[in-house]
Amino acid sequence: MNESTFLTALRSLPLHAGARDLADDTALLGDLVLTKDLVVEGIHFLPTDPAADIAWKLVAVNLSDLAAKGAVPIGILLGYPLAGDDGWDRGFLEGLREICQTFACPILGGDTVTANGPRTLSLTAIGRATDPPARSGARIGDALWVTGTIGDAAAGLAIAIGEQGPSALLAAYRRPQPRLAEGRALAPQASAMMDVSDGLLIDAARMAQASRCAVMIDLAAVPLSPAYAAHIGTNREARLAAATGGDDYQLLFALPPDATPPVPATRVGSFAQGTGLTLTQAGHPVPLPPRIGYQHG
Amino acid sequence: MNESTFLTALRSLPLHAGARDLADDTALLGDLVLTKDLVVEGIHFLPTDPAADIAWKLVAVNLSDLAAKGAVPIGILLGYPLAGDDGWDRGFLEGLREICQTFACPILGGDTVTANGPRTLSLTAIGRATDPPARSGARIGDALWVTGTIGDAAAGLAIAIGEQGPSALLAAYRRPQPRLAEGRALAPQASAMMDVSDGLLIDAARMAQASRCAVMIDLAAVPLSPAYAAHIGTNREARLAAATGGDDYQLLFALPPDATPPVPATRVGSFAQGTGLTLTQAGHPVPLPPRIGYQHG
Repeated sequence: MNESTFLTALRSLPLHAGARDLADDTALLGDLVLTKDLVVEGIHFLPTDPAADIAWKLVAVNLSDLAAKGAVPIGILLGYPLAGDDGWDRGFLEGLREICQTFACPILGGDTVTANGPRTLSLTAIGRATDPPARSGARIGDALWVTGTIGDAAAGLAIAIGEQGPSALLAAYRRPQPRLAEGRALAPQASAMMDVSDGLLIDAARMAQASRCAVMIDLAAVPLSPAYAAHIGTNREARLAAATGGDDYQLLFALPPDATPPVPATRVGSFAQGTGLTLTQAGHPVPLPPRIGYQHG
Repeated sequence: MNESTFLTALRSLPLHAGARDLADDTALLGDLVLTKDLVVEGIHFLPTDPAADIAWKLVAVNLSDLAAKGAVPIGILLGYPLAGDDGWDRGFLEGLREICQTFACPILGGDTVTANGPRTLSLTAIGRATDPPARSGARIGDALWVTGTIGDAAAGLAIAIGEQGPSALLAAYRRPQPRLAEGRALAPQASAMMDVSDGLLIDAARMAQASRCAVMIDLAAVPLSPAYAAHIGTNREARLAAATGGDDYQLLFALPPDATPPVPATRVGSFAQGTGLTLTQAGHPVPLPPRIGYQHG
């Protein structure tokens, strides 16, 4: 089964109301927000990535899900494979300490197991939110916004694999910054919000699908960093690579057309009646690339 | 690092107060009880174990931790590796459905990843408890009790590997029963409680260590099932195998010396001043075996 088939089958099992039909990245339990993400060696990280960065990323991708709900982190539960490599374990613990301190997110508990093959690391993060926006709340006419810049992590992955390139892009891949402060500021205003983990285009399409409307994205508006522009470029191909690359961990959110976000963000598109994703560049239609983002499973 | 070294290092990181210094199987967050356990192919289960049984066991070992706190399950978050084996996935989902229905424990959410090597499955279970007993609350003079029978799962593992033997023992290994009802009945009375996952002796020694006292166990009192007695025997060797085998998922608890438990249970020992574990059989000292249970990592 792929992820979609598995989730469809899972939906026929007893679901908690807070699972909201498994259509979101987080579960809600009273004012608690719960998320669980796994990272697997060889799939989500390279065997050569530093252990401290893997710890950072494991926690960051979960905190990013909390950020999309405007949640304040409470704590994490860690599932850790012991592989008999003291240096790796020490590096991991150092990266874990850094991110726990940076985002005031303490350790609640977890489990260790003896590693058997490629490492699978698992994390559950718990936060508290008063009025978490859903992925499914975008309305026809809403504008689509995104925080920060897009494509840096995907360009950074190529550098991690061996390409020459600026350290800022490598850092975007290895040390993603969960947008917790932005999420808290945006949550009261956003009709819908989610984090960009699999690529701007695919995640925007998912928000539109969950919200039962269509989404149009202007490729020319996709925010690129100076480092990305210098290293990869700003033409259509470079913009498509950025918008389909994934691992951005920026916040993607819908606002009423006349609203202005309370944090720095870029308007990249809008929601309309209908279904699906339409791409334009400076008013001209752009055909969708064959792959619009990372598909799980 | 082994588990103990890793936990020591982890304790120097920011810990939530509800982690209680990582000295328990669960974390506490208000009236919520949180636990996270991983199971790994080739370590916690055999590649030949039926997928439905692995689903059952993954949830059961977590619910067993909730049982030890007298908690009512609220829901679970699943971390699942997709390995492109539809039959396995279907079997897993069926076992998951059975245990979710049996213990009224719905699915809250989770994550799927592409499997890469031996399967690592991860689960977070959340429950609610009013006054959860700690592992560390046993007092000098308390009696040590255990629910059910001990050793069946360890004998069942040998059968799963290929030995001939009764199906009741195999079922104890493949379909452990979390003692949720017993846990709820015992929690208000127990000075300390935990589940027996790694072996009666090692888990009793851990309870004594956490409670800063010594524990004495009478091997003759260790409750054996008729199936175990018939298949393995009841002599000292058979009793030591039962008490060090693990995977029992019975509840081990301390009660004041004159108290009687409200559920069927067997008195197997008592707590005293000092440290460590002492074994006797019918009043005579028994030397500790070189291995008193399953040690992680």
